[in-house]
Amino acid sequence: MPSHAETTGSLAIVGLGPGKREYITPRALKAIASAGYVLGHSSYLVPLEPLLAGKQVISSSMGKEVDRAKQAIDLARNNHVAIVSGGDAGVYGMASIVLEVLEHEGADIAVEIVPGVTAANAAASRVGSPLSGDYATISLSDLLTPLEVIEERLDAIFRLGIPVVLYNPKSRGRPHNLALAMGLAAKHLGPDTPVAIVKNALRDDEETVVTTLGKIEQSMDAVDMHTTVIVGGRESRIWRMGDDVKGIITPRGYHRKYVY
Amino acid sequence: MPSHAETTGSLAIVGLGPGKREYITPRALKAIASAGYVLGHSSYLVPLEPLLAGKQVISSSMGKEVDRAKQAIDLARNNHVAIVSGGDAGVYGMASIVLEVLEHEGADIAVEIVPGVTAANAAASRVGSPLSGDYATISLSDLLTPLEVIEERLDAIFRLGIPVVLYNPKSRGRPHNLALAMGLAAKHLGPDTPVAIVKNALRDDEETVVTTLGKIEQSMDAVDMHTTVIVGGRESRIWRMGDDVKGIITPRGYHRKYVY
Repeated sequence: MPSHAETTGSLAIVGLGPGKREYITPRALKAIASAGYVLGHSSYLVPLEPLLAGKQVISSSMGKEVDRAKQAIDLARNNHVAIVSGGDAGVYGMASIVLEVLEHEGADIAVEIVPGVTAANAAASRVGSPLSGDYATISLSDLLTPLEVIEERLDAIFRLGIPVVLYNPKSRGRPHNLALAMGLAAKHLGPDTPVAIVKNALRDDEETVVTTLGKIEQSMDAVDMHTTVIVGGRESRIWRMGDDVKGIITPRGYHRKYVY
Repeated sequence: MPSHAETTGSLAIVGLGPGKREYITPRALKAIASAGYVLGHSSYLVPLEPLLAGKQVISSSMGKEVDRAKQAIDLARNNHVAIVSGGDAGVYGMASIVLEVLEHEGADIAVEIVPGVTAANAAASRVGSPLSGDYATISLSDLLTPLEVIEERLDAIFRLGIPVVLYNPKSRGRPHNLALAMGLAAKHLGPDTPVAIVKNALRDDEETVVTTLGKIEQSMDAVDMHTTVIVGGRESRIWRMGDDVKGIITPRGYHRKYVY
């Protein structure tokens, strides 16, 4: 068994951003270009295809994250390996499980985490400026976090009145968590609180809905697992141009200091 | 006065990420390349210099955001304009004030917001995976938000026990807000709670410190206005390899479902 110092491989944990090539950083592309092995969910690998010629590509399906992390580490002992996530690899992505397994196995491999544009910022950019100040991101997936913990967090943050970005708002296995979250929001925030639904942010099939907490029920069917939902805070408001609803603005507070 | 439909300009509100070219998305570069006018704080414009030849460059200092927004909009009525922010333009960046002024002036200009890698994700990538699950971002600047509101938010979120990213942790005008925040954290979280200090994330002069809430006082002098501070949550822990402290892991919860 080689000592730690003898490992010759490397492992890059790479965030790809929202999906399209024009939102992938040069650093992320370089990490992929330098790798002999590229691992990731197939939906993230498809846009990379022109880059993957001559590489070993190991695509897997959702729910196999632990196996994928172990496989990446095994390969990275002697090879240059990139493991990719959508968005930022550190936010509901592969970074934590890879590092946990790495620590557990005591594998001293050179690791680089390459950050990417996370879904919160990608989605926000499509609906104005809803996250201009303090905000929280909460996942509605109860696969790894108990639902009562999610509810406690939502309740506390809606009470506080800062904007909340909901990741994983709906999937086949948990169709009701979004309605639950909206119910908790309505306990603390008025019906005019703006809500944005952004599906496939910055991809070709993008769809956005800007509505309010009072009317969200009419749009809830539009939400799927590729959607990010942004619930505004107490200071957020609809951004209008004439009669058109353009998005959400959460003012940073300049209006308290300046006249404009 | 021309009607709205007659405006011929455009306005891109562009997030540059942590600073170096390799973390700027191709979309952001393209928005700058297409612009005749580029506006921003001088520290963000310097790394772009090779791209700025032949353009009108208007650099300004911190604290002139309202004037810069107005100027960008005036120019964008008849010109292609890019206004740049560090990180993501929508997170404590220029997006909200530009949209507020745009709405107020009723200027119907084609606007694109180009997201970037925000400081939370850039900093996190340098210290493991501290933000793997739910988290909040809070600015300690009381220039635009009253200090008592910031305290209320910190108190509620530390109580909840999710990781918190502190933007603007310290500046000459508010040297004590960080100590205040750490005091609030210590009310709710144990002394072993990991804390990361990341100065100049992903830039040449980067410095990182990984410590704990119990020992943060010894490192507080390292924090300045170019620093992001990450306070772990109740589930976060120090990431070690042998005797080395490598960073912070906030487990996503796979350990509750899988053996690895």
